[in-house]
Amino acid sequence: MLLPGERIDDLERNGLVIIQNPERFSFGMDAVLLSAYVRAPRGSRILDLGTGTGILPILLSDRTEAAEICGLEIMEDIAGMAERSVSLNHLGDRVKITCGDLRRAEDYFEAASFDVITSNPPYIPAGSGLLTGGASGDEEARSHDAARHEICCTFEDVAAAAAKLLKSNGHFFLVHRPARLVEIVGVLSGRGLEPKRMRFVHPYADRRPGLVLLDCVRGARSGVTVEEPLVVYESPGRYTPETGRIYGRE
Amino acid sequence: MLLPGERIDDLERNGLVIIQNPERFSFGMDAVLLSAYVRAPRGSRILDLGTGTGILPILLSDRTEAAEICGLEIMEDIAGMAERSVSLNHLGDRVKITCGDLRRAEDYFEAASFDVITSNPPYIPAGSGLLTGGASGDEEARSHDAARHEICCTFEDVAAAAAKLLKSNGHFFLVHRPARLVEIVGVLSGRGLEPKRMRFVHPYADRRPGLVLLDCVRGARSGVTVEEPLVVYESPGRYTPETGRIYGRE
Repeated sequence: MLLPGERIDDLERNGLVIIQNPERFSFGMDAVLLSAYVRAPRGSRILDLGTGTGILPILLSDRTEAAEICGLEIMEDIAGMAERSVSLNHLGDRVKITCGDLRRAEDYFEAASFDVITSNPPYIPAGSGLLTGGASGDEEARSHDAARHEICCTFEDVAAAAAKLLKSNGHFFLVHRPARLVEIVGVLSGRGLEPKRMRFVHPYADRRPGLVLLDCVRGARSGVTVEEPLVVYESPGRYTPETGRIYGRE
Repeated sequence: MLLPGERIDDLERNGLVIIQNPERFSFGMDAVLLSAYVRAPRGSRILDLGTGTGILPILLSDRTEAAEICGLEIMEDIAGMAERSVSLNHLGDRVKITCGDLRRAEDYFEAASFDVITSNPPYIPAGSGLLTGGASGDEEARSHDAARHEICCTFEDVAAAAAKLLKSNGHFFLVHRPARLVEIVGVLSGRGLEPKRMRFVHPYADRRPGLVLLDCVRGARSGVTVEEPLVVYESPGRYTPETGRIYGRE
């Protein structure tokens, strides 16, 4: 079940686990907060674009009553880890991992067939920031980079895929960096994915946000609700009541 | 000095006053917070688009060391009130009020001649929301409506005027409603006025923002700093220390 360097991490959520290789990539708070931000009706179909090790589909299997949760991941070995985690959690009937390129998402999925799409995309534009080893050919460094940098796809690609695969009035939930907000909402709105809810995540109440959560609706009219701040910590190491609830540590 | 219905209000700031007609329009917290958000270098030229009774130029005369502060207002009688307030404050050497249409701003001002432009534009799109009397021909109701609704100009018009009159790398400071954020930043960015700082104003720390302050730079590259929340009240009627400082009630 495990390849060298891999380990099984307990998600502390109804016995769920995930296979990760901490040398390559471990999921972060962004994935957990995004999973809590998603609203998916009972019986709906969800797709997670760039699912990585499958953290979003696995968390959403517990947080929603969706009938089917698909995950699309371009890197074969990472998609393999996600598939093994799905098996380990006995989620094979609801969660399906597909290895493929989201720029050709219609090769794998029918257009306008999902009620909900999610994505925790790479935050850093290609060509900016230091890569740890993309050019070296080292597989570990490559997957590490691809999760953070727009190497395998740009944000434009992610939005285009979501716009194609989402039903009319379907929701696209994503998390990104506030620094790219202007660009991101422009791309989304331009693709007919209108941001309707937006929530900034602040490490402390009096600090700048480090993340922004977005809920976009395909084909909706313009107009967004900027929600109350989501504050992570009350004091160092101590979650606020809301973050504590999200992590199930009430 | 005063026409029927007008009164002189003390700005509680170094003896400054303003003539207002409370039946028509009184400045609000948005103007005060915007004046505190503006950064203008010593000796700079500032223009306030849609200046109304001149509250922004009058506050900025005290808050900045700008050499010249112009205010452009379309309604003749309102521009007249602003002019009388300038006289009353003995600010005639630094503050100039012009009565004119910002859609023809180049008729009054040279292109690319301002270091800083400010605006507290109407928040409500034309055609939505109830007008109190725009169609009735009642002058009082008309000025009341025009301050809140995009009757005399759209946001696109305001951004176009700012883009024409601002020097390269000049700053455009504005306040608007978060509900229109996606549209507003799209228009600004499309006009080459790139949002670089953004601050949401929340009535209380755990409530949704009611206003957003923006600092845009003409010709800057994409990338914005979303700042820490600006929280107005600690408890009902009691300002936070920051708002208290802005109102000079430390």
